[in-house]
Amino acid sequence: MILPNKVRIREVVLRDGFQSWPEFVPTKTKLEIIKAVMAAGVTEFETTAFVSPKAVPQMADALEVVKAVPREGATHAALVPNLRGAENAVAAGVDQLNVVISASEAHNMANFRRPIADSLAALEPIFQLARKNHVEVVGAVAVAFGCPFSGEVPAADVIKLIETYVDYGSEAIALGDTTGMATPLRLQQLAGSIMDRFPDKPLSLHLHNNRGTGMANLLAGLQVGVTRFDAALGGIGGCPNVPQASGNLATEDVVCMLEDMGIDTGINLEVLLDAARFLEKNLKQVLPGQVLKSGPILPAQGACGAKQFGN
Amino acid sequence: MILPNKVRIREVVLRDGFQSWPEFVPTKTKLEIIKAVMAAGVTEFETTAFVSPKAVPQMADALEVVKAVPREGATHAALVPNLRGAENAVAAGVDQLNVVISASEAHNMANFRRPIADSLAALEPIFQLARKNHVEVVGAVAVAFGCPFSGEVPAADVIKLIETYVDYGSEAIALGDTTGMATPLRLQQLAGSIMDRFPDKPLSLHLHNNRGTGMANLLAGLQVGVTRFDAALGGIGGCPNVPQASGNLATEDVVCMLEDMGIDTGINLEVLLDAARFLEKNLKQVLPGQVLKSGPILPAQGACGAKQFGN
Repeated sequence: MILPNKVRIREVVLRDGFQSWPEFVPTKTKLEIIKAVMAAGVTEFETTAFVSPKAVPQMADALEVVKAVPREGATHAALVPNLRGAENAVAAGVDQLNVVISASEAHNMANFRRPIADSLAALEPIFQLARKNHVEVVGAVAVAFGCPFSGEVPAADVIKLIETYVDYGSEAIALGDTTGMATPLRLQQLAGSIMDRFPDKPLSLHLHNNRGTGMANLLAGLQVGVTRFDAALGGIGGCPNVPQASGNLATEDVVCMLEDMGIDTGINLEVLLDAARFLEKNLKQVLPGQVLKSGPILPAQGACGAKQFGN
Repeated sequence: MILPNKVRIREVVLRDGFQSWPEFVPTKTKLEIIKAVMAAGVTEFETTAFVSPKAVPQMADALEVVKAVPREGATHAALVPNLRGAENAVAAGVDQLNVVISASEAHNMANFRRPIADSLAALEPIFQLARKNHVEVVGAVAVAFGCPFSGEVPAADVIKLIETYVDYGSEAIALGDTTGMATPLRLQQLAGSIMDRFPDKPLSLHLHNNRGTGMANLLAGLQVGVTRFDAALGGIGGCPNVPQASGNLATEDVVCMLEDMGIDTGINLEVLLDAARFLEKNLKQVLPGQVLKSGPILPAQGACGAKQFGN
């Protein structure tokens, strides 16, 4: 198995993890979580979204969060759905703007309430603003591996969006498996063809675990040379109607697996688990992450083995 | 990615899934579950264990279950910890005996209350009995990828057990990742070296998902040519103290991923999901399986996409 030696894991719990959380997470708690995660060695964050507080009440404190986060040793991205959001994010001082368009019309309408053509037309001023202010932009494609409304998503539709992003000067490309419809072959086919076509653009994967395939997809991504992954502490995020459906890959589960495979994440699992436990305590709910329940692979655990019988 | 065209999935919910379930599952329900799973096309079962009802109260109805299960179109294996269990299983009419020894002394002591040497010494009469009665035996190695008590398990210790199984005439070999300590590289190294060494013995994998790596391990297994996997409906099983720690890989999640990858399982996912919902209803608890929550990959689902924002 050919694997990279090193990967970059971006922590998205503050945006994708929290955005659908039913209760507002106090700004103070969000900042404590960032600090706890940074203590483990995480340096990249999708920190918030500059969106309408009506649409996403959890992100109402976007400005406050960005103003207060530790800047040293961390890069902070913000999701922006439009120029206004981009202006606010740039004014707040984020390091990176994340723009997102769905690869299917149906999902783009549901998610952003406009056709893809309108989303594409809105890109130019955002990229211009970013360039003027020396802020990176990363273009993300949502539902890249399948749409919950319209099913199969043709690769050509994904590539068309990416071409536009690249033309505008996107720093990197992100593929989102928004509702966990990817499987390893689909993932390798699409990611592989994009890497062949845009060899100079870093590709990152944003994987959801709705159907239990998240970690297998991550492995498949590693095998075609992807080295950037989003993950969310505790594995939260995704569909708000299904709390246990496990949204994002749990950062601590990803770190546990990769470090065991000798792939350097730069992240200390034990310290990250402290952060995950702090998150769990604050959210007052058992979170989907598995390493939170079972502990690291080694050293010896004890508790779980004793009562087991058989294999 | 080189993958097999076809795999065999064995349903172990009735043994590994139920054995630690806190409330006794009525025999009638167990039989209804077998039938529901068979309706989906599953043909191989680990159906029960012939063990002391004091040690594993859930298996107290082993004889009753084996006597009543549909035999046509299905093979029924029973886990047997000793000669007495083997005698009872053979008398009941099982198709296959499963013997298990842990690869670490510490786990064998905790699990079977005897040193590995004593477990090995107990094998001969079991294999003799089976041969006399034309019943297959499959030898399984528990904690093959790591022990929750003693940590790393040397490959040599696993191979020593397998050599003994093969010498006695084991029909196949099973590697158990009893507490979910395998990662894809560990798995490929061990499974690969065993397949090289025992090329004529079918190898099956019994994977637990305690640390979120189960499906990635299954993918890694497929890539080295493994074509037999255990899975449990709903993803139940494993450590009884951690209900959400997700024991076995969920059969329906495995089928969903493999069929999407064009790998034939012979199992109808929709019918299997009916069985999983029936199980969930009877156990009165949300089960760990993800496809139970999110539905199959296609056709379009709808519900979950609508409220999502971003990627």
